[in-house]
Parts: sequence; structure tokens; C-alpha cells
Amino acid sequence: MTARRAAIVGGGVIGGGWAARFLLMGWDVRIFDPDPEAARKIGEVLANARRSLPGLSDVALPPEGALTFHETMSEAVEGAEWIQESVPERLELKRKVYQTLQEHCDADAIIGSSTSGFKPSELQGCATRPGQIVVTHPFNPVYLLPLVELVTTDKNAGETVARAKDILTGIGMHPLHLRAEIDAHIADRFLEAVWREALWLIKDGIATTEEIDDAIRYGFGLRWAQMGLFETYRIAGGEAGMRHFIEQFGPCLSWPWTKLMDVPELTDALIDQIADQSDAQSGQFSIRELERTRDNNLVTILRGLKAQDWGAGKLLNAQDRRVAGVPTLPDDISQPIVTVERAVPLDWTDYNGHMNEARYLQVFGDATDRMMILVGCDADYISTGGSYFTAETHIRHLDEVHAGAVIRVETQVLLGEGKKMHLFHRMFEGDRELATGEHMLIHVSLETRRASEPAPHLAETLDRVAAAHVALPRPEGAGKAVGVKG
Amino acid sequence: MTARRAAIVGGGVIGGGWAARFLLMGWDVRIFDPDPEAARKIGEVLANARRSLPGLSDVALPPEGALTFHETMSEAVEGAEWIQESVPERLELKRKVYQTLQEHCDADAIIGSSTSGFKPSELQGCATRPGQIVVTHPFNPVYLLPLVELVTTDKNAGETVARAKDILTGIGMHPLHLRAEIDAHIADRFLEAVWREALWLIKDGIATTEEIDDAIRYGFGLRWAQMGLFETYRIAGGEAGMRHFIEQFGPCLSWPWTKLMDVPELTDALIDQIADQSDAQSGQFSIRELERTRDNNLVTILRGLKAQDWGAGKLLNAQDRRVAGVPTLPDDISQPIVTVERAVPLDWTDYNGHMNEARYLQVFGDATDRMMILVGCDADYISTGGSYFTAETHIRHLDEVHAGAVIRVETQVLLGEGKKMHLFHRMFEGDRELATGEHMLIHVSLETRRASEPAPHLAETLDRVAAAHVALPRPEGAGKAVGVKG
Repeated sequence: MTARRAAIVGGGVIGGGWAARFLLMGWDVRIFDPDPEAARKIGEVLANARRSLPGLSDVALPPEGALTFHETMSEAVEGAEWIQESVPERLELKRKVYQTLQEHCDADAIIGSSTSGFKPSELQGCATRPGQIVVTHPFNPVYLLPLVELVTTDKNAGETVARAKDILTGIGMHPLHLRAEIDAHIADRFLEAVWREALWLIKDGIATTEEIDDAIRYGFGLRWAQMGLFETYRIAGGEAGMRHFIEQFGPCLSWPWTKLMDVPELTDALIDQIADQSDAQSGQFSIRELERTRDNNLVTILRGLKAQDWGAGKLLNAQDRRVAGVPTLPDDISQPIVTVERAVPLDWTDYNGHMNEARYLQVFGDATDRMMILVGCDADYISTGGSYFTAETHIRHLDEVHAGAVIRVETQVLLGEGKKMHLFHRMFEGDRELATGEHMLIHVSLETRRASEPAPHLAETLDRVAAAHVALPRPEGAGKAVGVKG
Repeated sequence: MTARRAAIVGGGVIGGGWAARFLLMGWDVRIFDPDPEAARKIGEVLANARRSLPGLSDVALPPEGALTFHETMSEAVEGAEWIQESVPERLELKRKVYQTLQEHCDADAIIGSSTSGFKPSELQGCATRPGQIVVTHPFNPVYLLPLVELVTTDKNAGETVARAKDILTGIGMHPLHLRAEIDAHIADRFLEAVWREALWLIKDGIATTEEIDDAIRYGFGLRWAQMGLFETYRIAGGEAGMRHFIEQFGPCLSWPWTKLMDVPELTDALIDQIADQSDAQSGQFSIRELERTRDNNLVTILRGLKAQDWGAGKLLNAQDRRVAGVPTLPDDISQPIVTVERAVPLDWTDYNGHMNEARYLQVFGDATDRMMILVGCDADYISTGGSYFTAETHIRHLDEVHAGAVIRVETQVLLGEGKKMHLFHRMFEGDRELATGEHMLIHVSLETRRASEPAPHLAETLDRVAAAHVALPRPEGAGKAVGVKG
């Protein structure tokens, strides 16, 4: 199967982020950027993305596509389904780029612009085929933040818009389709409103850049990582809801409106003040260090939201399901069954620099969950009141593993009889064995919280796998106590 | 020792949040609120706080203080060190409250106002002792968000301000002391700027409340939970830093400034539109459900940031250290040593409704880390290139435990000899035994990643504990393999 093909016109931080999204989701990516430093810059973004994105997923991503750099725009866009334009924010330049693009690209390719300011009607202006140009405005870091503002006009066919959404969703993004075009779309209008206020606060000596950042990240920033403005205010309104909130706080909110509408002038003195304060706040870290810190934090927050299946985490779980499909028992069950295949996330390492011991059990727990699903103990079954609880676990740590490594667990059923399910998991990176986990599970009634017989269809399937696995050699380390040589 | 005493004047969601912070940090809390529903309302906030705050901490909090309700303000403020006023936002009402308060409260008590709009000079206006009144503006949910804006005037003595900071820090908050007073302080100015933009977007039919929330929580909300506006833009500016960012984006940011300064009128039609959209977005959840979801998410995000020791997580780690002090080996080492004492956090449970199996190993891992620190293998030692790696683990799950339960681990050293450290952890809730963990650790060189001898001072201390523990009975379950009866 030939990989799908995307072209990136204009590299840099944003173009590089787009390249990373497509590449890591298995697309071939062709880059055009006249900057002689383009390959280095995109390489740096890609390194950041490879470090953080695969482990954000709880399933293995498809093999990376091929990355190529091209001398001309015409060569770069050849055969591309998607062309992402991220050149500087000058309307004439963008229009010129589209002119060249449209002479060489497929007529049904989608041209997405990363513009943060222009409306699609402005971009489509004098184009040969305005219908293939849309705004797809992403947020830095593009490889981690799911939001992309999709802005279209009536020149874009419904089919084009649907295909754009489909492709963006496919690379793990959330296309937010604006109901109408507007200057600066949605999110940047908020950012600019906040920026305007921040400039006043600094200019008037109320707070420094660091204090403003603290006011955000210790307060409403935490709210906004999971609920937005309106859902937060809905809660503040209490049982009476949104209407009550507006009635209660509406007048109060309006007081400063009349006072805060001025715009501070961006003088050299104010720029110096901001730059100096920012140095004092963050100057001890290089930009590379800040990027890594930011990505560690984002992965941690996003993975936390995945565990809650909420907000951006809910999007990521849906993406995992799209990538991995529905788990089914393989036709050939004569060999141990692959129950986990994933990258080690950034936030699973500890002060010793390797995957923390508790994460081994987390992975083995995931392997057990998968095995349960494969034999029929899935969410539907659990909702009827039966489940398996782990009674006992024996882990042997054979070798270290680091963030980013792709790990795999193979599971052998040692015993599946009555209430008991006795599993032996082996964890690998490639051929290198990292750990074994021996687990005794007991089927329980979730009502009495005591041991109970599993449902017949479950017992039957487990029995079938156990019977197939009984012929396998007993794994090394099985049945051993701590400190006893295997 | 008598508990410290705080008075809460004006209950509701904000007053209740303050009450929870003080109570859960061991203060006695006396409440005055003429609302006949006050006890119920504060009880609901307290229930939310008890569910989420103790497990946010990685150490056991002090015993809860006593909560009492009082008929009069004079009785409520008696002997209080801190008085928090959260009455409705009407200046005359607040001034009247201070008048009554000051007739009865201690002259050196601090009166903090939760006002989101008034400047402290306005509140101090005609007070008998203006010097004891400050603004301490918190953010909902007060029991989880660390930010509190502290705004003072030159009427407040330096000692008062220092004491206010100290008390606020002591209850786990981050006092952000404004350099000058200003209408609406800092954070609410940002919120109002965003609110203003949001009203336009809805009024003009660009986006619904849900789409606006998505634009926030899938994009910059994730950035702002961990870095603020300026640190984020510093990264966007790349190696050239903040100055470059402003030069590059300054002019571009200014475009919409001139366009977006209008204020939409809050007509009934616009209020209806917002309320209806909010119902469509969140109406399937009750406010109580939304509160629990929000708190689950916040605990998850905050705990993630703790693991990264960054932003609000760094504050929480500092708070844990303040609460728990420096770990030291007890004088009497003849008994198993308490190595963990903490509440089970909200985000540690799984689809079976109890603490997930991997969290047992996480807790035992924390117990091991503590034992390592107690015998001298602390961060300083590890930085010299030696550490312990876990080679093998045997966990027996004896009973379930749920979020909020206070658990304790007692650790017995089975062997401390040469490179080996053989530990046996027992986990309890009260007297109920939940699990045992038997662990074999090997001292390693972090350079070669191979077994190595520990430093003499470490070996000596471990030896001393092992010698004291050798007289203890061998714990049930030690040395057993999976599936073998203890």
C-alpha cells in the first residue's frame, strides 16, 4: 500500500509541527522551504515530536512515513492530498504561493493555510481554484495540541470540507469548524484580549511577566485545560445555571469594560520592560529546555485527561480506537497473545532515568485488561456485575527501558479454570526481554465483592485459550518466589 | 495544643471553599452566615473538598479542625487569627460588616476580603482599623486552586502582610501580592477580556458556547495550565526570545486591537442565546456531576504537575514538605518503620471502583524510596552515581481500598547485606491489612547500570536497621510464589 502524501510549504516551528503530525501517523511528507536552515529546524521539531507524541498514544502508531526535502514547490506538491502552507503572514506572499501551487498540485488536493490572521475569503481572493483553499490554523506545539481552527467560505464544496475534517481528525487533531469567517478566527482573539490586558498590567507596574504567568497557571489556566469559560461559569452559577450566573455577575463584569478599552502603545521602553522581566523569569532555561519542560507537562496533563476520558483526553482516546480498531482474539491462539504494543510515555520515567517500577505493573495491568476483553470480560460484561480482581502478582525486572521505546507484552494463559485466571506476561522491546509478570486473578461478583463463577461464555473462551496454551513450555520464572533463582 | 482559629463571614461556594482549606489543614473554623441554608451549602462544598484535597497531598494532612456555626458575627470572630469575608459584592454592605467585625475581633486578626472587584483602599475606607483589612481574592474551587490575589495598601503594616502570606501559604495557597491596587486585580481582568470577546463571538454567530470552550480546552487552556502567556510566547519567539517575539508578532497582534474594542450589549436575547447554548452543551450533567468531574480533572492535572515538579505542582510539593518535614529514621527501629502515610487520590481508582493494582506498586515504590532515603540513599547520594533498582516484586492483594481512604505502609527489612536490600511492606487502612509487597533491590552504579557496592555510610545504616529487624517474626507471605498458600 502506498502511503498517503502531504506537502509542507514553509517549515519553521509551525510547518515542522504539521510535518511531525503527518509523518508520525504514517503519511509521506514532502517539504519545500527556501530557508537553508529548514532541514535543521524541522529536524528539531521532529525530534521533540518523536519524543512526546508516540507515548501519548496508548496504542502503537503506524510506521513513520518518509520525509523528503524538495528544491521547488512544484516538486514538493506532486501527488499530495494535503498541502499545508505556513509562510509568513503577508497576504501578497500567500496569494503568490497559491498561484504557483495551483499550477502544479492536484485539482482536488486540499490547501490548508496556517494563517492566524487572514480570513479564507482573503486567501482565496484571486486564486485559480479558490474552492481548494481553506484556513487550518493550528496551535503550537502543533504535534501535541489537538485544536485546529477550520475556516471555510461558500467557495469550498461540502465534500472538500468533509474531507478536510476527516484528514485532520485522522492525524489526531480536532477540527473546530467556524460558523462564519472572522478576523483572527476564535482563539487568537482571546489571546489578543489577554495580551492587551497584560501589556497594561506591566506598563502600570501592577505585575511582572512572571506574576502574570503565575496568575494564569495557578488559577484559571488549570480550569481551562479541562473545561472552558462557559462550562466553568455554569458551575459557578450553581444549580440555577448559566442564566443565574449572567444575571449575578453580568453587571459586575461590565464595570471594568468601560475602563479597560484603551490600547497601550508598544513603545521601545515597554518592549524592554517585558523582555527584561521575561529574562528574569525564564532566562535560566534555554528555549530547548523550556520546550522539553512544556512537552513533558502537556503529555502529563493530556494523559491525565485520557484517564478521566474528558476534554482533550477524550479526543485522544477516540484517536487510539481509530488507530487500533476493536480488539479481537487472533485466529491462531497456539502462541502467546500480544496484549500490549505501545511507546513508553515521557511521564513514566523516574529519578533513575528509566521507566518507573510501578509502570511495569501498569503495563501488565493493561495486558491483563486486554486479555480479559479478549475472553469476553469487557465493559458490557463488567456492567452486568462480574469482573476479575488481581489477587497476586510477581514481577521480575530483567532490564531497563526508557521513554520513547516501543514495548510489547506477550501473554500466556497458565490456567483458566473456574474462578481462577493465571496469566504470565512477558514484556519486550524488540527481542530484548524487559520483565515478566505472573498474575493470579479471581473472578468476583461486583455486588458481594467475593469470588464467583464467571459467565459460561467467558469460561468457555478462557478455557479454549488455556487449552491451546497448555502445550507451550512453562515460562522461565513462573512459580518462583522473590530471591529464588529462576 | 489548641488549634488555630479562622472565622468565615459569608458562606456559599467561596466561603465554603475557604472553610475547607482551613479545616483540612487543622484549623478550627467558625462560620457566620445568616442564610438558613448555609450549613447545607457549606456541607456540600466540604464534601467535595474532603473527596479531593487530602489525596492531592502525598503526605498525611493534620487532623481536621472543628467546624462550628454561630448565630452572630461577634461570636464567630472571637479569638480568630484570620477572618475571611465573602459577602455579596456591595461596597456599603462590606463596610458595614467590617464595622461590626472590628468591634469584636482581635485587633491583630487579619480580615481578608474575597472581593473580585473592589480595591483594598475602598474596603478600608471608613474602617476603625484599616490596617487589618486586606484583599485575598481566591478562585473557585477554592479548596483546589492555589491562586489567591493578595492586595494591600500602605495602611497595612509590613508585618501584617508577611503574616498574611505566611498563613495563606500554610493552608496550601499561593499568595500573589500585587505591586499596586487596581480595579478587578489581575486574573479577573483577563477573564473579563475573554468574556467580552466570547459575547461577541456568540452574538455574531461565529461559535457557540461549546465551540468556544473547545477552542480553549483543546488549545491554549492546555498551555496555560502549566506555563502562562509570557513563558509560552518566549518559546514561540525561539532562541531569539521575547524581544524577537514581540517584534515579530507585535504589529500583527495590533490589527484586531483597533477592531475589537467595542462592548456588546447584554440584551435579554443574548442572555437567552448563551443560556440555551450552555444547556445544549452541558445540560446532560447536573452541577454536582460537573463539580465532581472538574475536581477529578483538577486533581489529575495537579498530580501530573507534581510529578513534573512544575508550576502548581511545584507549589504542592513544597506544601507537602512543609506539612511532613524532613524524613528521619525513628529513634526506635526495633519495629517495622512507617514509610508511607497518605490518602488515596481521586485518580487512583479504576473501572472496578477501587484503587488500581498498579497504584499498589506505586505506593510500595514510594515506601521503598522512603526507606532508601532513611538509610542515606537520598537525592544527594543518587547524584554521586549510586542508587537501588528493584529486581523483583511480589504483591498479595488482600483487600480493596477506595479513593479518600488514609493508608499506611509499614516496612520490615528482611535483609540488608552487600548489594542486596530485601524489604517487606505491609499496607493498612487503620487495622485492616490491604496488601503486602516483598521487594528485592540491588544497589547499582548509575554509570555502568550494573550491581555495585553501596557507600559505607549507607551500608552501615542499612545494616543497623536490618540487625534490629532480624528479631521480628518473619511476615506471613514472605518468600512465597504466586498461587502458593501463605
